[in-house]
Amino acid sequence: MDSLFSGSLCLIITGASRGFGQAVCVKFAEAVTKGKGRAKFFLLARNENGLAETTKLIKEVSKDVEVQVVCVDVGNLSSLPDAIQTIESGLKPDDYQNSIFIHNAASLESQSVVDTDDCEYIGKYLDLNYTSCHYLSSKYLQLFKNSPGKMHLVNISSICALDPYKRWALYCSMKAARDMLISVIAKENPLVRAVNYAPGPMNTKLLVDALHRNADPSIKISLLGAIEKMLATKTVSGNNF
Amino acid sequence: MDSLFSGSLCLIITGASRGFGQAVCVKFAEAVTKGKGRAKFFLLARNENGLAETTKLIKEVSKDVEVQVVCVDVGNLSSLPDAIQTIESGLKPDDYQNSIFIHNAASLESQSVVDTDDCEYIGKYLDLNYTSCHYLSSKYLQLFKNSPGKMHLVNISSICALDPYKRWALYCSMKAARDMLISVIAKENPLVRAVNYAPGPMNTKLLVDALHRNADPSIKISLLGAIEKMLATKTVSGNNF
Repeated sequence: MDSLFSGSLCLIITGASRGFGQAVCVKFAEAVTKGKGRAKFFLLARNENGLAETTKLIKEVSKDVEVQVVCVDVGNLSSLPDAIQTIESGLKPDDYQNSIFIHNAASLESQSVVDTDDCEYIGKYLDLNYTSCHYLSSKYLQLFKNSPGKMHLVNISSICALDPYKRWALYCSMKAARDMLISVIAKENPLVRAVNYAPGPMNTKLLVDALHRNADPSIKISLLGAIEKMLATKTVSGNNF
Repeated sequence: MDSLFSGSLCLIITGASRGFGQAVCVKFAEAVTKGKGRAKFFLLARNENGLAETTKLIKEVSKDVEVQVVCVDVGNLSSLPDAIQTIESGLKPDDYQNSIFIHNAASLESQSVVDTDDCEYIGKYLDLNYTSCHYLSSKYLQLFKNSPGKMHLVNISSICALDPYKRWALYCSMKAARDMLISVIAKENPLVRAVNYAPGPMNTKLLVDALHRNADPSIKISLLGAIEKMLATKTVSGNNF
């Protein structure tokens, strides 16, 4: 952690307006100050108010982080080139000893496969949860590939990438696909640290929303139990961990 | 095999105009005749000539199989409802003791992730290699769910669903996603036999095309070697196995 945060760092993160993404930003900002480093964070998300809140939280813990918000719905693929253009205009890749792209944005739909017969609905899910991730990975690799800094590509994964869960076919399938995408990137780019990281069940809006909408009762019981236990034992810290 | 082919069987298979799909149709037709059963095969593919060839090959080995060709590009999602309508009109689900849907259609693109920054290109790949599979699974489950026959859903998988290969990020990711989809379907439908089946490297047009286009040299050597060995040892039979 020290070497990552003691020099100059560029962080690009999706889903930065709430939940895990917001918590990562705050923790990273704290680490930058602690490491006596400096950083620029690009915060991508749809929700402008949420992005302002994340910016405020970062500024509260660090004066060493420059923040640029990029208000974009990553599920709306036609808006991605503009977002990339904004990022490209806002940085010189050679300035950073380390860069990190974190694929954190995701959505969770709860529906049995027998009831999922709308190709447009499936397609929109794939846009946000896979295609944007593939496209942004490609652009990140292009952006920094000729720079001397160390590159890190992180996919926020889940046990659902490995194990099937009822009513979560889209979520599980695309988490599996994203894990595989990152694994191929790791093979193709030996100098890029590309990793899938599954933080475990979290008390975030995404999960709570999904659980209360239409999850399978067996999942609901097991996940709510895990979250409750996690919060009670306080083995993790941060607002949304 | 006997029980499956000794009664009445409905087979629906995508990618039926060539390669592995064609070979499966011929082998299944032989098995129906050997098992003294009767069957109806729905052959889905784009290529009308290929479908006619598969029909001819089926008729050469069996008089007990009724064939209905459904000329459709499964990657063109807007054409799928019509294809399903054609199948629905061509069968009474209650008539069959067994039904099998085989997801065989797939395409193989060879491109590094750093060079894959066209969302439309990625989206089209996902249409054929994931979304069509999700949609058709849903429709198959709906079609037969109230019938007394035994249901079988087979996904033609690959080692690429498990292991990452350079330049095959899309192929590997969507094979992983399809495997997961089938695993969720198996959980959701305990009475449906839903399986992922990876037949190993095959001397099919899809693989040979892909290898000669743009595969990573290391993959080319290892796969061509495997195919050569397979053909030399004749451990598998059939036109395209």
